[in-house]
Order: sequence, then structure tokens, then C-alpha cells
Amino acid sequence: MNKEVVLAEGAGFCFGVKRAVDIAFDIAKKDGNQACTLGPIIHNPQVVEKLRELGVEPFEDIINNKSIKKVIIRAHGITKEKLKELRDLNYEIVDATCPFVKKAQNLAEELSLNSYQVVIIGDKNHPEVKGILSYAGKDSVVVNSSDEIPKLGRKIGIIQQTTQPLRKVKEIIMKIIKEVDSFEEIRIFDTLCNFTAKRLEATERVAKKVDLMVVIGGRNSANTTQLANLCRNLGVETYHIESAEEIQKDWFDAAKKIGVTAGASTPQWVIEEVINKIKSLIN
Amino acid sequence: MNKEVVLAEGAGFCFGVKRAVDIAFDIAKKDGNQACTLGPIIHNPQVVEKLRELGVEPFEDIINNKSIKKVIIRAHGITKEKLKELRDLNYEIVDATCPFVKKAQNLAEELSLNSYQVVIIGDKNHPEVKGILSYAGKDSVVVNSSDEIPKLGRKIGIIQQTTQPLRKVKEIIMKIIKEVDSFEEIRIFDTLCNFTAKRLEATERVAKKVDLMVVIGGRNSANTTQLANLCRNLGVETYHIESAEEIQKDWFDAAKKIGVTAGASTPQWVIEEVINKIKSLIN
Repeated sequence: MNKEVVLAEGAGFCFGVKRAVDIAFDIAKKDGNQACTLGPIIHNPQVVEKLRELGVEPFEDIINNKSIKKVIIRAHGITKEKLKELRDLNYEIVDATCPFVKKAQNLAEELSLNSYQVVIIGDKNHPEVKGILSYAGKDSVVVNSSDEIPKLGRKIGIIQQTTQPLRKVKEIIMKIIKEVDSFEEIRIFDTLCNFTAKRLEATERVAKKVDLMVVIGGRNSANTTQLANLCRNLGVETYHIESAEEIQKDWFDAAKKIGVTAGASTPQWVIEEVINKIKSLIN
Repeated sequence: MNKEVVLAEGAGFCFGVKRAVDIAFDIAKKDGNQACTLGPIIHNPQVVEKLRELGVEPFEDIINNKSIKKVIIRAHGITKEKLKELRDLNYEIVDATCPFVKKAQNLAEELSLNSYQVVIIGDKNHPEVKGILSYAGKDSVVVNSSDEIPKLGRKIGIIQQTTQPLRKVKEIIMKIIKEVDSFEEIRIFDTLCNFTAKRLEATERVAKKVDLMVVIGGRNSANTTQLANLCRNLGVETYHIESAEEIQKDWFDAAKKIGVTAGASTPQWVIEEVINKIKSLIN
């Protein structure tokens, strides 16, 4: 039987994640025992583990640890308050926040300072959104679905969690416009990450022509979950895994063409392991 | 037979029209023979005629007339170029532009100066829109229907002809958002006139409970035509007239309840004449 594995373009590390990982490993190699990250540098346990081996611990919260001199800010960013705490404790800050996330944080702050009510489209429980929200002022809101549009002010500024799908973002913006009674100004910025959109498009193209999709990435990774949901919504049998070990042979019994894609936090070597494992099972 | 006439709230002169007419008559009484208007002061032939009797001619274009010292700018405003011409000819400018229209002109200029492509929702042939457009920069566009959304730039600013219906404006904005591929910023200002919206709402309420609507206002008046269309779309028999003389007795043969509304340029005395005429015919 002639089975085939197809990898979606743009699967794996995006620009912001690659940049953050490079920054963290540079620091780790130079000052491993004097540096830490605040929260995991990216949503990938293997990368976090490798950094830990080099001495860079991922602290969940700020610890006044005398041996730590440098704190690396993860790709998702942190809240304004946490950043201030770190500065007050005189840590050297190494900012590996994704530039797309930084842009959203800056816009949130600027809009808030100019009396706009900031609307963030995204998941309020995601660290990136918590970070952006901390810059967005008291009356800011997070909206995650067109079914939950709150009553908004007369001057609003709309931004997005960088990994949100454009279709959903448009749906929510259109609903906001539909429901608004009267307003002074609605300002919409595009803070979506291009890489995410391209990865979603490429994944859709692959999912449409295969019998089964394997989606690789952290279970708590928003953009990976989105990839898996996209495939499921297209009616394709889909498995969301974190590593090659989870793969089961019988998944592929009925599938001729198998698609693979991976979230932004999945390193290249994890993708390769998965593809090799699938190939070994189907041939 | 007990027939009844109901007048919609807010029928007739709006704030901007009343202001423009007051300004024009003040000038007319003081300096009638030294003043003119550029275009009709408002879209109402009777008002224009009364001003003419006081010596204030409505010139269609700029005439280098030595006896004219003052030029009154009509409620709809004029183009930036015409205003400059008038200034270069050293006329004293009396600006009776409706403050809502002025706001739209100012926003168009500000957006254009800040590199936004200006999108004006409205009728490109209407003098108000021509005026606003002259401030909106070279790449600006006028959109009058959700079926004709042009390809737009990455940074756009959306404003409206003041008398457009909110529902149509929202439809066009939603279509723009639906069709946009990627963008940097979309900025939407509400330049609609409250009075127009309230008049439309009040007219709708009346139209829903009567058998026939009489809509009074210039045939070239956008807001009056809108009122008439609103009534027709509600399935009510509707007559759009400019004055009481046009009324025909047989219109009211089958109607028990008759509604009356009037556009923003219709003076109170014209409305009263119409109501009196209807009452005399039905009783």
C-alpha cells in the first residue's frame, strides 16, 4: 500500500518564537546560572527542559533570588505590573517578547492613554492576552466570541491576540459594528501575526487533501489548538499530540494520505521525529 | 367619517438648517444688496426666493461682482477650492456650513494629512459630499452601497455624509471589514447628524400606524427622499411633495389615518399649509 505523509508549509517555529529561543539560548550559554525566564520562554516543554539543563529556570513568579541577575521575558510577554516589579528589584531585563505582541501592548497603552476603551479580541486566560490587558486601562475588555459582545463606550480601540484567526476577528468586529447604537470613533488595528495566518492557510490546504491530520504542539498552545480545530471543522480525522511518543499505529490503518502540521512553539526536531515515526509505522 | 392627521416629531428644519437660514436672513436684513449665497442656502425653493426678494442672490458659481462684498456659505458647505477662490477675491466669508458637515470636512482633512485613505459613505453627486471630498485627499473614495466596495489601502479612515441612514452605513462598514484582506488600521468616525436619525425614527413610528404618508421636502433633498423611501419600504402608500399645491383630494379617499413628515429643509409654515390643506380635504 502506498501511503504518503505531507507536511504543511510554515509548520513549527515562527519568527517571534525563533527569536525568543535564540535570545534565551544565547544568555543560557553565557550566563546560564545567573539567568531565569519568567514563565516558560515558549509553550514547549522540551525547549524549556533544555534551557533548564543549561541553568535557566522558568520561574512562575518573581523570586527575589540573589544568584539571579538577568530575567528573560518570554515570547508571550508579561504584565506591566510584573515588569515594574522586576525593574524595582534591579534585575537586568532581557526582553524576548515577540515584536508582534509588543506592538499590541504598545497600542493598548497608547489607546488607553488617549481615552479609548480598548477591546482585545482573544482568550482572556492566555498569558499573551493578560500581558496586553495590563497595558489597556481599567475599562478594557476581552472578547472571545461574537456571541458575547459587551456594551461598549463611545470611543473604542480594537486590537487582537496575535494568534487569533482573521475570520473570527472579522466576525467579532462586524458584530460590534452591528450592535453599536451610536459612537464617536471606532479604531481597529491589525495586531495579528502574519506567520499564524499563513500557517493556518497552509494547514487548511493540506487538511483538504488528506485523510488524517497530525497536529503537533503544546496542549496549552492557543495557535496549535486552533490548527487542530481548523482540521476538525473541515471534517478531517485529527490527532493533537505533543511528541512522537503519543502516536499510535492503528490511527493510520484506514488513511492513505497523512498530513502533518505544527504550532509556533514546536521545534523542527520534534516535527522530524513525528514524521519519521509515522513513516516507520505506515511502511 | 373620522379621519386623522399625525405629524412626525422632528419634521422640518434641523439645527444646521435653522442656523444657516437665521444667519442668511440676518445678513439679508442688514446688507441684502451686498451679499449673496454660493449655491442655494438650503434645499428649499421658497426660502431661497424669500432671500432673493431681500437682495441675496443664490449664485451657482463665483462671479467677480463688484457690488457683492459678502458671500454666505450654504448649510451643505462648499469645496476647499471654491473657498480659496472666494478668499483670493477678498470676499468677506459668512460661513453657514452646518457644524456637522464642518466636522466631517475637518476629519477628512485631518485623516488625509495623516496618510489615511478617506472613505466617504454617501452620494458622490450631493453638494455636501463634494465639499467633504475636496478635503479628503487624492486617494479618497465615495461609497454609496455595499455592492460597490472598491479595493482599499492598508490605512483607511471612514466618515459619512451627515444624512445617511445608520443601517446603510453599518452595512457598508461591515462589508468593508468582510472584504479587507489585511490592513494596518481602520478608523471609523461617526459624522452622522443626530437630527436626521431621530427624524427617520419618528417617521418610521408614524408610518407604521397610518394608511398613507405625505412627505414634504425638495425633490433634490437627500434626507427627504430617504424619508419617502423609508415609508415606501414599510409598505405604506407615500406621496413626496414640495408644497401644499401638489396635494390631490382623491389620495385620501381610502385612508383613515394620514401621516405627515418633512425633510430638514422644509420650513414650519410649509408643513402647516400642508396639514391645513389635508384637513380641509378630509373633513
